This record gives sequence, C-alpha cells and structure tokens, in this order.
Amino acid sequence: MNAIYLDNNATTACDPEVVSAMLPFFTEQYGNPSSMHQFGSRVGGAIAEARREVQALLGAAHDSEIVFTSCATESNNTAILSALKVQEGRREIITSAVEHPAILSLCKHLAEHEGYTLHVLPVDGRGRIDLGYYENLLSEQTALVSITWANNETGTLFPVLKMAEMAKGVGALFHTDAVQAAGKAPINLKDSAIDMLSISGHKLHAPKGIGALYLRRGMRYRPMLRGGHQERGRRAGTENVTGIVGLGIAAKLAREHMQAEWTTVKRLRDRLEAGILLQTPYAFVTGDTENRLPNTANIAFEYIEGEAILLHLNHAGIAASSGSACTSGSLEPSHVMRAMGIPYTAAHGTVRFSLSRYTTEAEIDRAIAAVPQIIAKLRKLSPYWGETGPAQKAFQPEYA
Amino acid sequence: MNAIYLDNNATTACDPEVVSAMLPFFTEQYGNPSSMHQFGSRVGGAIAEARREVQALLGAAHDSEIVFTSCATESNNTAILSALKVQEGRREIITSAVEHPAILSLCKHLAEHEGYTLHVLPVDGRGRIDLGYYENLLSEQTALVSITWANNETGTLFPVLKMAEMAKGVGALFHTDAVQAAGKAPINLKDSAIDMLSISGHKLHAPKGIGALYLRRGMRYRPMLRGGHQERGRRAGTENVTGIVGLGIAAKLAREHMQAEWTTVKRLRDRLEAGILLQTPYAFVTGDTENRLPNTANIAFEYIEGEAILLHLNHAGIAASSGSACTSGSLEPSHVMRAMGIPYTAAHGTVRFSLSRYTTEAEIDRAIAAVPQIIAKLRKLSPYWGETGPAQKAFQPEYA
Repeated sequence: MNAIYLDNNATTACDPEVVSAMLPFFTEQYGNPSSMHQFGSRVGGAIAEARREVQALLGAAHDSEIVFTSCATESNNTAILSALKVQEGRREIITSAVEHPAILSLCKHLAEHEGYTLHVLPVDGRGRIDLGYYENLLSEQTALVSITWANNETGTLFPVLKMAEMAKGVGALFHTDAVQAAGKAPINLKDSAIDMLSISGHKLHAPKGIGALYLRRGMRYRPMLRGGHQERGRRAGTENVTGIVGLGIAAKLAREHMQAEWTTVKRLRDRLEAGILLQTPYAFVTGDTENRLPNTANIAFEYIEGEAILLHLNHAGIAASSGSACTSGSLEPSHVMRAMGIPYTAAHGTVRFSLSRYTTEAEIDRAIAAVPQIIAKLRKLSPYWGETGPAQKAFQPEYA
Repeated sequence: MNAIYLDNNATTACDPEVVSAMLPFFTEQYGNPSSMHQFGSRVGGAIAEARREVQALLGAAHDSEIVFTSCATESNNTAILSALKVQEGRREIITSAVEHPAILSLCKHLAEHEGYTLHVLPVDGRGRIDLGYYENLLSEQTALVSITWANNETGTLFPVLKMAEMAKGVGALFHTDAVQAAGKAPINLKDSAIDMLSISGHKLHAPKGIGALYLRRGMRYRPMLRGGHQERGRRAGTENVTGIVGLGIAAKLAREHMQAEWTTVKRLRDRLEAGILLQTPYAFVTGDTENRLPNTANIAFEYIEGEAILLHLNHAGIAASSGSACTSGSLEPSHVMRAMGIPYTAAHGTVRFSLSRYTTEAEIDRAIAAVPQIIAKLRKLSPYWGETGPAQKAFQPEYA
C-alpha cells in the first residue's frame, strides 16, 4: 500500500507537468540566458513566460515586479534587509510571534547585533493578531512590517491587506511571507498596499531551490546578492532556468486549480478533522478555524508527544509533521503553539496534516482509520493518561 | 546540422547521468529532508552522498566543510561578507582586476559604501599577477584575499596555493572563486591554506541554481541567509535536493573524467587555436598560454567587433562568447581585456571558445573551417581594414 503524504506545507511533490516542462532545459535548451547565441536567447523567452505566470498568480501589475530567487528564505532575507537599507532613518521592525524562522531569526539577529528595535506582535489562543495593538506600535519610526499571509503550522490567515494599508499610513514598507498562501488563497497585489511578497516554488508543486520576491514598482530597493546584471540587477547569479520554468508552470496550474481546490481540498480536510476528532477525546484543532487555508489541519492531541505520534504515523505509512520542518529536531513545542498559549500538555502533541490537490478521499479515510488508534495506543503508554482519561497526577514536564 | 556549443565557460549542458539521478527526487522522493518521515529521511542520505562527492572533487578534509548554496554568486558574496564580519578589526580587501563581477561588484560596493579599503591587483599583458606587488599589499589590516583560481575569459590559472600561504602569513582569510577551475583542474584543499572556495554546478554539467561553498573546519563564519537550521545553520532555506543530487553526480563524473579531459579537451582546443590562427592574420591568443585551463581559447581578432563575430558565428551554428555572459550587453571591451592592456583594436574583437568533454573533433573541424571565413568577411566591411590588411587610417573608436 502506498504511503499517504499529508505534509504538503513542508514541501510538495513536483507536478508531472512541471517536470516535463523543465526537462528540455537541462540537456537541450541549456544556454546561459545572458549569452548572445541561440542556446541563450531561446531560454530568455521561457523565463519571460514564467515571470508572467507568477505575475498572474500574484495579481501583480507588472511582470517586472517579479524577481526570481533561490528560495523563500532568500526572498524574506532580501526583503527585510532591503527595507532597512532604503530607510536608514527608521529603526523599528514589526513582525508577529508566529512567523517562519526565515523572518524571526533574521529580525532577532538585527535587533541583537545591529541595534534595530523589534516589535513582535503576540497572537491570541486562536493565533489571531490584535489590530489595535498593531496600530499602537506603528509610527514614523517603523521601517518595515513583515507579517505572514498564512501561518505554516495552523493555516491561519492574517489580515495582511488591512495591515499593509495601516503600515502605508505611517510610511512603513510592508512585506508578507506568502509561502503557504500562494497557490491556495487568492492574491491580488495590484489592488493592495503590499510592497514586497515572498513565495517558494516547492510549496506549490514546483521544485526545491526556486522562489520569487515581488517588489512593487517604484519602491526603493537594495539587492542582497551582487554580481552580474541578472534580474535587472536585483538578484545577481545565473538564472536557475529549470527552476524558473518549473515555477512558471506550477503557478499556472495553481491558478487554474485554486478555486476548485478551495472546495475539494477543504472538504477532505474537514472530513479528516471530523473523522479524527469524533473518535478521539482530548483533542482539538488549533488556529483560527474561521480564517484559514483549506488544506491545513493542525490537531493537538493532549497528554502525548507529537514526535511519538509522527513515528507511529510514519510506520503506518502516513507522513505528517509537528511544528515546522525547519525547526524539527527541537524538543520544545513549536514557537507557534507557544505564542498561542496552547498548554504544554497539548502543545507537545500537535500534529499538522496538510493536504494537496493530489490527496484522495481513500487516503483521508485510511488516515481517519489509523490516527485515532495510534493516539489511543500511545495514551495507554503515557504516564499522564489513566485507564479512561487524563491521570489525576499533575502534568509536570521536565522542560517546564 | 546540429549547432556547435563552444560556450562551456558560460554554462554547460547537464550530463544525462545527472538528469537521471535527479528525476526521482522531483516526483517520488520529494520529502523535505528536515521532515521526520520516510519521504524526508530518504532524501537526507542522497544529500550526504552528494556532499561526499563534492568533498572528493575538491580534496577537502571533511564533508562538513561543504555547504550547498544556490549559485557561485551566493557562495562568493557569502564568503566575502563572512570574512569581513568575523574580522572586524581588519578593514582591507585584496582582489584582482580580472575577477568575476560577483567578486568585483560586491567589493567595490563595500569600498564605496561600507568604508573598506579595496586593493585591486593589476595583471600583466598575459593576465598574470605580480606576487611581489601582492606581498607588499598584504598586512595585518588585510581581512580577506579573494583571487579566482582560473579566469573565466582566458582560462589563465592563478597561483592561488602560493597566494593563500602568503595571506595566511599575515593572518588574513583567503577565498578563491574556483567556478572555472573545479572539475577541470585538480584541486586538493586539505593540503592548502585556502579557507574558502566557491563552485557552481552549471559550469560542470550540473543544473543551474546550485552551487557550493567550501568552509575550512574551525574557521569562524557568519551565514548570509538566516532562518532554518539547514546546512548546520550555515545556509538557511530548504535544500535544493535535486540540484544537490545533480551536483554530486556531476562532481563524481568530473573527477573521473578530469585526467583524460586534460589531454583530450586540450588537444581539441589547441587544434582549434592553431587551425584558426593559421588562416587568420592579426589574431592572437590572450591570457597566460603557459598556465591555463585546457578547454579555453580566447582569441583576439583585430580590427573587428566581437559582437558582430558572435552574430555571424551564431548564424553559422557556432555558439561562443565575448567577455563574460554576466557582463554581455555592454559596449565596452571586457574588464579582463582592459586589465591586461589589450589594445582597443583587439580587445573589442575577442571571442572565447570554451570546450567540454562533449566537444567532438568534427565540431572543431567545422569551427576551423567557419571562423576564418567569418573574420575575413567582417574585416572587408570594417572601416579599419583595407584591401589586404589594417587600413592606414588611425583607429579612433567612439568610446575612446
């Protein structure tokens, strides 16, 4: 029986159409797009086509607003550093407690080593930001606001359109990490106040190693990578032609599938959640269930360890994750669960199931059959679980 | 008739073995290597294997000294910025006038905007560095020396082993851009004083979008990209798994072919040069013909324009280049030709032919037949060329 892949927020399989489109550029149309001969010039057209597809996916006004990068981490780092360099008089950064490490890690470094003031917006128990709190932080000192469009662990959608307008009100630049949202939720940048936006190919069925950064036309910008004149001088380095072509096709497919997916994938996700919760006491869905991506189910299973669940799931042929793949290996509950104030007894046992358009009903039904059994089995082994429910013994984890 | 690709210093075709090795990682073994399930864990082994292959190609002492990046520009930028950050008391950089833009552009930026002192080593008419001049520049103020192992336009090899030893003598870090040398010339880092070295996948039959940075064990280092813990915290961002696997295979193939290629490719290159020069007056090979890569022939054709030559070559089905692909589009002669003091009448007419192990004798013979005819035809149209040779009229280009 094939394994079931429910970890699409960590990474996705390449769409076969994406691979087919890339193949000729490995061994036939392999020229350097900067070269003055047929091997090079043919490639330029393919890059232009891919750029228009990404533009369309993001609803950007101009294709020149799309800069190809190597990954979302590069896009995020570039956006943040550029925003600070072009506004040297402003020394404050606003972000949220539930950002990806590619945002938080750099922002904390800048606060600790470069003297910037970092404001980290807290979230409530459902992972939501308080816009009043945000408004009070905004000032003429704010250089940059960077808020994710959708959280990678819970799928919670943030009011980035509104927050970008508010940032604009004080003249701050607004960046959003749309890695999880792009291709799943509609994005229409030309009607927004968003200045910069990051996406990653491998989260939407393009290969790993390609990303893009949207840069609003007319905005001041400083490149991070310096060298050749590629990407109009905004990102030096020979273009990752196959990755760019793949991202273009993936963007086209995502745009075509998006509306249908919001219904079909959401139905499967809701079925998975309901099926698991119906059979499993002391379990709940985390995040803002009213406003979230259609593919993400983050379920907290109380009184057991997420890592143990994942190992048993893997053994049962089900791939899921706890926390972000980028922070796995840590024994602490994820920073997202901690920011939401999920109690340790539950935060340690959260599992993220993330679907894609390839997920089938049969796979979901297999997961619904397997997960509750694994949870029940692990709870029997847990010192915090009695015969029929949580033990009287107080939960005192070592890490407390 | 198939086109002849003689622009392998700009980029190379992927080896079919490289593509075959990558394919399963697009659609089957597509997991995130950081994930705790079978889709992820299988990928980790493939990355480890690729790292060992790159280690072997470079003769590094430890596989952990290899960090995968998105391209050589990223490797170069990262190396330079890291070296400056870990030696804050030293404010001087030494590089050469014939480096790639990924080095020169960043170094000039640092000199102009960050207050570093930049020493640019001149080269002689053959593209050689004066080691005495270099020695005089080295001091306790030198933070970093960055010298290419082999120049991309002429193939000239630099005495980087000796220069690294000299840098070590004053406690400076030594970086080398080995993009053109890796896979063509033997490299044995473990017996050298080189601290950092950059390579690019697409120059040695791996795909575009993957590179590597060698970091000597124990050396202090600061990452450029911050975020997840990938590459032991030295390069954040989900690993470009297919690119890494491809680079590993390409490194293995390069190592296996290197010795034979030095003979076979060199023989074809020498045949091409001799064949063209025998039929073409007022033409000469640029660079250090005693010490250069076996695959590169940079020929200056006096009194005509390189771009016109390239267009005619392209029409004849021959792909070559003038200057670096990364600086094409400029009307100035390449900075490498200018640094060597090649007269304008010749510097404007330089063409680089760069071969690979796929280049055949038949292709070289077709090039030998075509190139001299194109040169003769263009010279007849040139205002600087008379009936039988250079016109008496002085050459006064507009750009002078």
